[in-house]
Amino acid sequence: MSSAWGDYIKISIFGESHGEGIGVVLDNLPAGEAIDMDAVLRQMARRAPGRDRSSTPRKEADTPRILSGFLDGKTTGAPLCAVIENTNTRSADYKNIELLPRPGHSDYPGFVRYGGFNDVRGGGHFSGRLTAPLTFAGAVCRQILLRRGIHIGGHVAAIAGVKDTPFDMVNVSAAQLDALSEIYFPLNDREKETEMREKIEAARLSLDSVGGIAEIAAVGVPAGIGSPMFYGVENVLSSIMYGVPAVKGLEFGIGFGAADLRGSQDNDPYEMVDGEIRTKTNNCGGILGGITTGMPIVVRAVVKPTSSIAQEQDTVDLTKRVNAKLSVHGRHDPCIVPRAVPVLESAMAIGLINLLAERGKL
Amino acid sequence: MSSAWGDYIKISIFGESHGEGIGVVLDNLPAGEAIDMDAVLRQMARRAPGRDRSSTPRKEADTPRILSGFLDGKTTGAPLCAVIENTNTRSADYKNIELLPRPGHSDYPGFVRYGGFNDVRGGGHFSGRLTAPLTFAGAVCRQILLRRGIHIGGHVAAIAGVKDTPFDMVNVSAAQLDALSEIYFPLNDREKETEMREKIEAARLSLDSVGGIAEIAAVGVPAGIGSPMFYGVENVLSSIMYGVPAVKGLEFGIGFGAADLRGSQDNDPYEMVDGEIRTKTNNCGGILGGITTGMPIVVRAVVKPTSSIAQEQDTVDLTKRVNAKLSVHGRHDPCIVPRAVPVLESAMAIGLINLLAERGKL
Amino acid sequence: MSSAWGDYIKISIFGESHGEGIGVVLDNLPAGEAIDMDAVLRQMARRAPGRDRSSTPRKEADTPRILSGFLDGKTTGAPLCAVIENTNTRSADYKNIELLPRPGHSDYPGFVRYGGFNDVRGGGHFSGRLTAPLTFAGAVCRQILLRRGIHIGGHVAAIAGVKDTPFDMVNVSAAQLDALSEIYFPLNDREKETEMREKIEAARLSLDSVGGIAEIAAVGVPAGIGSPMFYGVENVLSSIMYGVPAVKGLEFGIGFGAADLRGSQDNDPYEMVDGEIRTKTNNCGGILGGITTGMPIVVRAVVKPTSSIAQEQDTVDLTKRVNAKLSVHGRHDPCIVPRAVPVLESAMAIGLINLLAERGKL
Amino acid sequence: MSSAWGDYIKISIFGESHGEGIGVVLDNLPAGEAIDMDAVLRQMARRAPGRDRSSTPRKEADTPRILSGFLDGKTTGAPLCAVIENTNTRSADYKNIELLPRPGHSDYPGFVRYGGFNDVRGGGHFSGRLTAPLTFAGAVCRQILLRRGIHIGGHVAAIAGVKDTPFDMVNVSAAQLDALSEIYFPLNDREKETEMREKIEAARLSLDSVGGIAEIAAVGVPAGIGSPMFYGVENVLSSIMYGVPAVKGLEFGIGFGAADLRGSQDNDPYEMVDGEIRTKTNNCGGILGGITTGMPIVVRAVVKPTSSIAQEQDTVDLTKRVNAKLSVHGRHDPCIVPRAVPVLESAMAIGLINLLAERGKL
Repeated sequence: MSSAWGDYIKISIFGESHGEGIGVVLDNLPAGEAIDMDAVLRQMARRAPGRDRSSTPRKEADTPRILSGFLDGKTTGAPLCAVIENTNTRSADYKNIELLPRPGHSDYPGFVRYGGFNDVRGGGHFSGRLTAPLTFAGAVCRQILLRRGIHIGGHVAAIAGVKDTPFDMVNVSAAQLDALSEIYFPLNDREKETEMREKIEAARLSLDSVGGIAEIAAVGVPAGIGSPMFYGVENVLSSIMYGVPAVKGLEFGIGFGAADLRGSQDNDPYEMVDGEIRTKTNNCGGILGGITTGMPIVVRAVVKPTSSIAQEQDTVDLTKRVNAKLSVHGRHDPCIVPRAVPVLESAMAIGLINLLAERGKL
Repeated sequence: MSSAWGDYIKISIFGESHGEGIGVVLDNLPAGEAIDMDAVLRQMARRAPGRDRSSTPRKEADTPRILSGFLDGKTTGAPLCAVIENTNTRSADYKNIELLPRPGHSDYPGFVRYGGFNDVRGGGHFSGRLTAPLTFAGAVCRQILLRRGIHIGGHVAAIAGVKDTPFDMVNVSAAQLDALSEIYFPLNDREKETEMREKIEAARLSLDSVGGIAEIAAVGVPAGIGSPMFYGVENVLSSIMYGVPAVKGLEFGIGFGAADLRGSQDNDPYEMVDGEIRTKTNNCGGILGGITTGMPIVVRAVVKPTSSIAQEQDTVDLTKRVNAKLSVHGRHDPCIVPRAVPVLESAMAIGLINLLAERGKL
Repeated sequence: MSSAWGDYIKISIFGESHGEGIGVVLDNLPAGEAIDMDAVLRQMARRAPGRDRSSTPRKEADTPRILSGFLDGKTTGAPLCAVIENTNTRSADYKNIELLPRPGHSDYPGFVRYGGFNDVRGGGHFSGRLTAPLTFAGAVCRQILLRRGIHIGGHVAAIAGVKDTPFDMVNVSAAQLDALSEIYFPLNDREKETEMREKIEAARLSLDSVGGIAEIAAVGVPAGIGSPMFYGVENVLSSIMYGVPAVKGLEFGIGFGAADLRGSQDNDPYEMVDGEIRTKTNNCGGILGGITTGMPIVVRAVVKPTSSIAQEQDTVDLTKRVNAKLSVHGRHDPCIVPRAVPVLESAMAIGLINLLAERGKL
Repeated sequence: MSSAWGDYIKISIFGESHGEGIGVVLDNLPAGEAIDMDAVLRQMARRAPGRDRSSTPRKEADTPRILSGFLDGKTTGAPLCAVIENTNTRSADYKNIELLPRPGHSDYPGFVRYGGFNDVRGGGHFSGRLTAPLTFAGAVCRQILLRRGIHIGGHVAAIAGVKDTPFDMVNVSAAQLDALSEIYFPLNDREKETEMREKIEAARLSLDSVGGIAEIAAVGVPAGIGSPMFYGVENVLSSIMYGVPAVKGLEFGIGFGAADLRGSQDNDPYEMVDGEIRTKTNNCGGILGGITTGMPIVVRAVVKPTSSIAQEQDTVDLTKRVNAKLSVHGRHDPCIVPRAVPVLESAMAIGLINLLAERGKL
């Protein structure tokens, strides 16, 4: 299997960057859920390229067409399929990658995996463009979650070493996440945007790219969701969030910071607050033993620098099996971190809706 | 679901710390695989407590009894079940946690998840003791992988800020991993052991604990294993490795380090070496687009400090719903990082055997 | 879950009878498989209505549009999505079924299941029209199987009590199945067609419908495919074949006939034939202990009479909760058995390709 | 995969007939469910051999030992594992089957499937003895279902052509099923027992065996359970019920009888009865479009005659690859239909508990 995910509400994503179209089927959605398609399109717009100078110049008109599962503004309960036509593709740009795999890309392992039969134009099924249907699916799921009091949002935690103010893992609020989740280049500290954009522009001028970190949170998830061992919240969320290209690491709560702490610092003490059980800190990111504590769920994803750079790079010729040089042409985004935020929020939404369904809470 | 994992070779783990017994069923193993049970026991011994002063004084005689699936030293192809009897348990130690959840433990979310019916003695099903059957299962799988040229090993990358020499992600060798995978407290730089043990002892004397990082590698995995999107190597490995208690973050290759790199630094250039396609660096940890490149697979896991500490901590009384104080008694390991290494190696082995099976390579 | 199926090669079917479109995603197909789309269309034509007087007058132009996973006549290995637009729909026919559930239809349980939000026009997602994408998926899979020497075909074993000559379960040949699988109203004894059509016409004139039996076989499946207990060939095939609407029973080999036999009659003795191990009879339908014997696989499915009949029937008003009378208008096929044959062949193909993949034989 | 089943509540069965032990793990059971272990043992006793002259003389003391997941008479929510030790085995009886596969048995396909490494003693993992843990699992699940108003029971519908009175599919009652489900050789018409036993004894004296039909019903399942296409009640129940050895056909409601009916006869008209929506007939067996109607669920399974017969049979020598003769010695039951009834009831219980869980109804 590959591009299908989910044990309760399943998504099946299809499409190749320069093929006829891309899309997604959502199977087993609850029936009768109102979905605001304008809100879905706003999420997709956050992910779309061409929003500003720093992103790829390719313009997409990524309006999904709903083929099924949706009637009179509500889910019917039958599989919901959305298709996005591919237009504005320039396949000629990618001619030489068939023989000369781009460093940092899936070209070479994809060639081996598919015996050379995969569609390499524009990255084919590996293209970041496939995150459009993922974002669509997540945007549908997050509306269903919102109706159950669960809010998801994220921000650009870091780009090229410039750091945004991290989430207050105890007090991050629904209102804060809702506000972040409506904008492009979401930041807790808006003043960091200029510095981050300067780093991106500097890389672009050097024919290079930069990476960063996205931090995503969810509030309103009740305590008791998830399971020990292999259906823990971390297992489930990471098994879908690694589906977002360029993600090479995920950490929950304080994450790798725990390596340097003592137990007395890392443990989150409990306290009663207005009759509710809460923790004073939230180093566990809202998850203990794989199960939610009722505190905010916080996860950070590292997004590696865009692999497609215009600088000349060393590679090999797959046919002649000799060393070679490669310069990648075409339209490429020198930093995809801002666009990765809504995609990761969407992946989290799909993960959480499955975790809730598993507990019979949908 | 919860304690069952695997799409091709499935494991189903059962047991509670102070119940009758714990164990695992491995379903769909290939038939006719010779398994050296002494080698399996050596892996289990690496995980077992009581190996040195720094670990819990509880002595376990964790000799698994094979009930099925194994005949004349070979797998029969039918489900292989191994059971470990529970002995040497002192349930009285855990009396007060039923009402007073331990900070950093699953007590509170577990109470909500199971409505108070779960067996809390010794942590019940959440106990680190459940990593014994996981290690058994992994020790079986790694022998099958070894026969296909795949070697897995790991080391203590850091404890309480003291760092071991990391793996050379390009040149880490089968021999190096084989040697590491036979010893307790595995290190690339043996001289770090003293300093690490001092940190652990200092924590213990403070009635506290310390965390760290385990780094695990596999060599010999052929290129072309894994799939884009949701059956990528990162997705699959993380969905099982988060099953190891105390793991709060996972990163592949350079991981979070990629956030500060440019694409020209992060991309791994290709080169021909003795007729083989290799990368000059391996920042991707042997995985691009979810698929193996043929280079070593490298993953790092942060292991949070042991939650059970003897210091008094703030908690709440779940019945009276008021604030309370708690001192955890009992036998607890002030640092579980060395023991987590073989468990994480095992989880990786189970993950990799499924990934190979998915490609028809078993 | 619901309309997604498959552990190795997954299909996800979507669409509603009178919605925008219907279709299917096939995930994890092997790459580089040539698919003859004309042959696919021929299979879809066998299923399509409007072929003769006895079938529904609705004309469908069910030409699927391939959106992904297919390039230069071959599978790319990425998910293959095919979409069929819905045209020629007359929703007015179905107005009263929202309140008055049709006997024998899914209207009432569907109403409860989906809380009244499901699209009931034309049967919505329950429509027999959803077998079009299933047939597409099966037609793709059977070409891949054919390349591995596996031939699938079926015939109308009975309609309204008129019986065709059953398959010779020992000697049914690839050539016989290939010939049957290219025609509409496939029969071993062509002379039975007139009598069967007379029964259908008689039912039609009585504003009624008739049922029957489809018998499907596969030859060329090697011995050793399948597993004991829950991944047996019978389990897997029935779990997909019951997805064909109107199927209410499945039997393998001699099936229910075994109830009246003695073991000495039912057991299939072995013999050597040209150096091959074969059975002299094939009462087991090519499956013992869930595993193939290498002999033909034979399964029979009962197809109940079409539920939509024009005769007045007793029903209830779901809103007023009182008894009511209902006459179903619209275009309905008085017998769907001939059209069910290619659908069941397709379901078997999808089942078998998964069983082969499970054993690493694709 | 093979001996693991279930998408929500998973069972993983292990063991071989003459190995150390057999058993089952039930993963993801709801917590806090009281289980009456005496009632479980009564179900296992119904399945056990040695109950009367007609069954195998082997005496089993199949008392399962619960290793986990059960505390103070209630489920803990953690995996529940039960182990049955193997005793009283006589492996010598089975010596020659390694080379001479028994007709009607899994010996030959099992040999191919497992490359000759499977444990053939007593049938190994293919043994009917593996239905003991399946019955245990089902006996646990049916108690949980009973608490939700769902009653399951069955009877011997036919043996060697002697037919019991079938269930009244409209009016079969909870009390009737409860009574049947507590006895050995359950019949609606007790007077048929003598004739059936005579047929069995006649076969035994001829060194032969007889087959039959088991009919199983469930009442109290609410309307709206199940899904169209591939998670229909028929799909789910058949995917587990074919796990019972010797079952070669399953039909729901009137099943194959529908082939000879007209739609006007087969359709079940609705009526209001005491404010409830019911059907006047129940030819659909309580399932339409894969979804429950709220009427009794009725399924019939054909159980082929016991394959192990003492008569000399034709076979082949797997090593020498020549024709051979075989006489099966050992203890064999000339008719397993009565013992299959509780096993099929158990399989139905496990199927139904998953279907309920899928709808969030547990």
